Amino acid sequence: MILGDNQYGKAETHVVRVTKSGARHELKDLNVSVALAGDFAETHMTGDNSKVVPTDTQKNTVFAFAKEPIGEIEDFAIRLARHFVGEFASVYRARVSIEEFGWERIHDHAFVRAGSEKRLTTVTCTDDGTWVVGGIGDLVVLKSTGSEFHGYIKDKYTTLPETRDRIMATSLLAHWRYTGSDIDWRKSFADIRRLLLETFAVKHSLSLQQTLYAMGEAVLQARHEVAEIRMAMPNRHHFAVDLSPFGMDNDNEVFYAADRPYGLIEGTLTRDDAPEPGLAW
Amino acid sequence: MILGDNQYGKAETHVVRVTKSGARHELKDLNVSVALAGDFAETHMTGDNSKVVPTDTQKNTVFAFAKEPIGEIEDFAIRLARHFVGEFASVYRARVSIEEFGWERIHDHAFVRAGSEKRLTTVTCTDDGTWVVGGIGDLVVLKSTGSEFHGYIKDKYTTLPETRDRIMATSLLAHWRYTGSDIDWRKSFADIRRLLLETFAVKHSLSLQQTLYAMGEAVLQARHEVAEIRMAMPNRHHFAVDLSPFGMDNDNEVFYAADRPYGLIEGTLTRDDAPEPGLAW
Amino acid sequence: MILGDNQYGKAETHVVRVTKSGARHELKDLNVSVALAGDFAETHMTGDNSKVVPTDTQKNTVFAFAKEPIGEIEDFAIRLARHFVGEFASVYRARVSIEEFGWERIHDHAFVRAGSEKRLTTVTCTDDGTWVVGGIGDLVVLKSTGSEFHGYIKDKYTTLPETRDRIMATSLLAHWRYTGSDIDWRKSFADIRRLLLETFAVKHSLSLQQTLYAMGEAVLQARHEVAEIRMAMPNRHHFAVDLSPFGMDNDNEVFYAADRPYGLIEGTLTRDDAPEPGLAW
Amino acid sequence: MILGDNQYGKAETHVVRVTKSGARHELKDLNVSVALAGDFAETHMTGDNSKVVPTDTQKNTVFAFAKEPIGEIEDFAIRLARHFVGEFASVYRARVSIEEFGWERIHDHAFVRAGSEKRLTTVTCTDDGTWVVGGIGDLVVLKSTGSEFHGYIKDKYTTLPETRDRIMATSLLAHWRYTGSDIDWRKSFADIRRLLLETFAVKHSLSLQQTLYAMGEAVLQARHEVAEIRMAMPNRHHFAVDLSPFGMDNDNEVFYAADRPYGLIEGTLTRDDAPEPGLAW
Repeated sequence: MILGDNQYGKAETHVVRVTKSGARHELKDLNVSVALAGDFAETHMTGDNSKVVPTDTQKNTVFAFAKEPIGEIEDFAIRLARHFVGEFASVYRARVSIEEFGWERIHDHAFVRAGSEKRLTTVTCTDDGTWVVGGIGDLVVLKSTGSEFHGYIKDKYTTLPETRDRIMATSLLAHWRYTGSDIDWRKSFADIRRLLLETFAVKHSLSLQQTLYAMGEAVLQARHEVAEIRMAMPNRHHFAVDLSPFGMDNDNEVFYAADRPYGLIEGTLTRDDAPEPGLAW
Repeated sequence: MILGDNQYGKAETHVVRVTKSGARHELKDLNVSVALAGDFAETHMTGDNSKVVPTDTQKNTVFAFAKEPIGEIEDFAIRLARHFVGEFASVYRARVSIEEFGWERIHDHAFVRAGSEKRLTTVTCTDDGTWVVGGIGDLVVLKSTGSEFHGYIKDKYTTLPETRDRIMATSLLAHWRYTGSDIDWRKSFADIRRLLLETFAVKHSLSLQQTLYAMGEAVLQARHEVAEIRMAMPNRHHFAVDLSPFGMDNDNEVFYAADRPYGLIEGTLTRDDAPEPGLAW
Repeated sequence: MILGDNQYGKAETHVVRVTKSGARHELKDLNVSVALAGDFAETHMTGDNSKVVPTDTQKNTVFAFAKEPIGEIEDFAIRLARHFVGEFASVYRARVSIEEFGWERIHDHAFVRAGSEKRLTTVTCTDDGTWVVGGIGDLVVLKSTGSEFHGYIKDKYTTLPETRDRIMATSLLAHWRYTGSDIDWRKSFADIRRLLLETFAVKHSLSLQQTLYAMGEAVLQARHEVAEIRMAMPNRHHFAVDLSPFGMDNDNEVFYAADRPYGLIEGTLTRDDAPEPGLAW
Repeated sequence: MILGDNQYGKAETHVVRVTKSGARHELKDLNVSVALAGDFAETHMTGDNSKVVPTDTQKNTVFAFAKEPIGEIEDFAIRLARHFVGEFASVYRARVSIEEFGWERIHDHAFVRAGSEKRLTTVTCTDDGTWVVGGIGDLVVLKSTGSEFHGYIKDKYTTLPETRDRIMATSLLAHWRYTGSDIDWRKSFADIRRLLLETFAVKHSLSLQQTLYAMGEAVLQARHEVAEIRMAMPNRHHFAVDLSPFGMDNDNEVFYAADRPYGLIEGTLTRDDAPEPGLAW
């Protein structure tokens, strides 16, 4: 019997940090998950916890570290991950994942949630290095034209008609691996988000795969601090409703937005001179 | 045995309508639910469906009606509800509820979802009248100061310390009853949303009830087309983390955002000259 | 401006109670929500909380009351509701709603969750009386035959073919009003659940309305402690897949289980000699 | 720019199969996801779809294959995966994942859902082989004693008190890799489920890691067709409520069931003579 890959930690510590400069407040709303790997065979085999950092302590550490200015989530995750690796001999690898929720200001000290879109990071640290992955999740986009799908394989189970015009919609989940850990995270994130949105909007699409590739390519071409980008794009099908039984045509005007099943397109693009991923993923 | 209140219908027909003016497209993203009441005792008691409009037909009707310009959701719901009452002798009352999801333009024909916030309406029609209720849901707001809570009853189960400064956060669900059915819905909704946000932000709060009342009052004072407003405000507790075990103070800077349990404050405000609600609710 | 209906309380206090008789443990897993109404105009209008029982205290009270043997959830809710009304002059009406989650024993002190099905109660108390509503939620049932649907109205939007054989599936939510508050709750619940399941299974169905009615009728006929029953039954559509493009027939064998839209059938049955509902609902 | 790992397919085709032996019906309720990898660079780079099997066709294939007796989900997934690899030159690897939902019989042709627990499989096929992974998800278990946690590292952020008695609860997600593809799947699954439950219940626990290890060990020791097992166990914290402010003690009787944050323990056990995993994961 071999104990293989294992890790443990506190997931989803939801911390809100308020920073006050006089009457004007700033807000950080973060969901922080910690996962530690290392010399933990004994707790598995005998229940000896002498090398275990309790997940409750990990939670406390997140809160205590939030007392200092948080800054960008990538930096906050780096500080946390380095702490766990540096402080505890039994911890070989610490991985800290953060979701950041956006808020829009409506007043000096009042805010409204900016939607379901989330900024993401996952930072992995060992004594040998730090790997930073950025990301964005639940970015829901739709284009009402500029999307075709045809020329595919037909077999005896094929019933889908070819189309020269359809709605294309997805909820993007993207993670990208940075080449370093000393980067202008805020600017990088903002640019990547903009590039993803613009390419989705502008690139004429013959398949969701082509759109995914173009979006990744745009990021890698413009942002040299990104070595690799991984994307998952569910195809949120919008089917043109057949209105002919009611004596109406439907020139891509009325759509039924389906829940399930959905296509799911996943792909990775890597810069050809990208450094090795190491423990990033 | 008496058959009491009953209704049936098709819930959650998710229709997306694209309107094209040359290259520039407009998008309506609606989740439509229909509920009919009337002379339906026979299907309950004998399974005789001769007076039943199938829910599948209701769904088709939603799609067919979406072929014409949708306009504001209140008008679309009125047209649908009147159709069911007018067309079918067995239908005494039709109620159409719509959720509208917001999208922000990123291109002539591309959009990004504007968040979880939803615009709502419920329209009820009979031969005798039309009642329109507007609403907003999942409007998540937070103020980082300007909220106190003290002076409450203490009994043997009370452990909550009084506070002169806390975070106040909620996810507002509000429905308001209109006095008529011929109103500038778009402007009314925009103004009500603005009033709700502004009052939440600006009104110094001694209790979530006081905030709720002030928000409703602001709407009723400014918008004379609104007869009544009903609000539900979960208290999304943000607890200041006790950092003293770590030798730190916490001057309302670091908060733990709790999921459950949560306070739930519900209240109704009515204009003193409001017309009778009739079948609005 | 008139302050109309209002209430407030602590929602979703999730309490687990373990009772130990030697090595053999019993488990109660409850989600408790409290809502109080009464003399609370001042907190709304001026923020004067001197008549307010904090929701935090309500939560503490739930936990403290759980120290005593809980018994059936209806009794636990009665004790809690009477406490709030009896203890606090400002509380005119207390309503306590409980969801109970089932667990199956796998060992003296180990259990596995018995599914998503929930036992429900809502108890309302004032100085003048106690009203008890029982219920069941998320009871998902399916019959693979014994269901027809035909003879309905056809109009220009009708495309649904009639059927003499279909799957009928629903997720039942039922609430029933008891005639009193001194009832063998456990036995009553078990019998009602059994009657609902049996009737769903055995009653040949010409419409979901007919099934709903038969289920309610079976309960009212057999359980005289029930005055009224309210049911909501979403029609979880299972559409027979058209396999003819693949040269196959489909004799109600292969179904696509759809998510949305869904039919929603709601109905109430009342015993003709039922006492007035009072504040039960 | 290098196109790295990529796959696409139809996710969550929800198919229900009814099999009729006279009046007695059998039910299979499956959620099927397909993912294909292969020679798909062209659709990414140019939108040339000539090697693409549309996800719509994949969905149709699932339905068409469900016309034949489904048998165990592992076999159904094998048939589907082999079809995609065998039929299409561009498909190098097909992965089919299935969730099976349980139903309990209440009648010859009526059923009630058996809970949120799911049986899982993921089958991967190429021309070179077939890899089968079994699994179970959302298996929620709780033990009310027989769990301790102490002897862990204390640092300046540690506040957790040691305990000799606590509730331990989790929602198990387990996947296990089979050594072959010709196995009595039904018996293997039933035995593994039983072993997981029994070990959770009986094994005295000094840490959730120890419990996870013991559960995996029990499976590997008893079921030689299993080469490896991977488990994820969120620690669903049940905190004993401090009743001392109310003058009560709490001898592990009254617990608050917390939602977030939660511990998350993940681990893998492998038989020392296990064959290589190949493309199983």
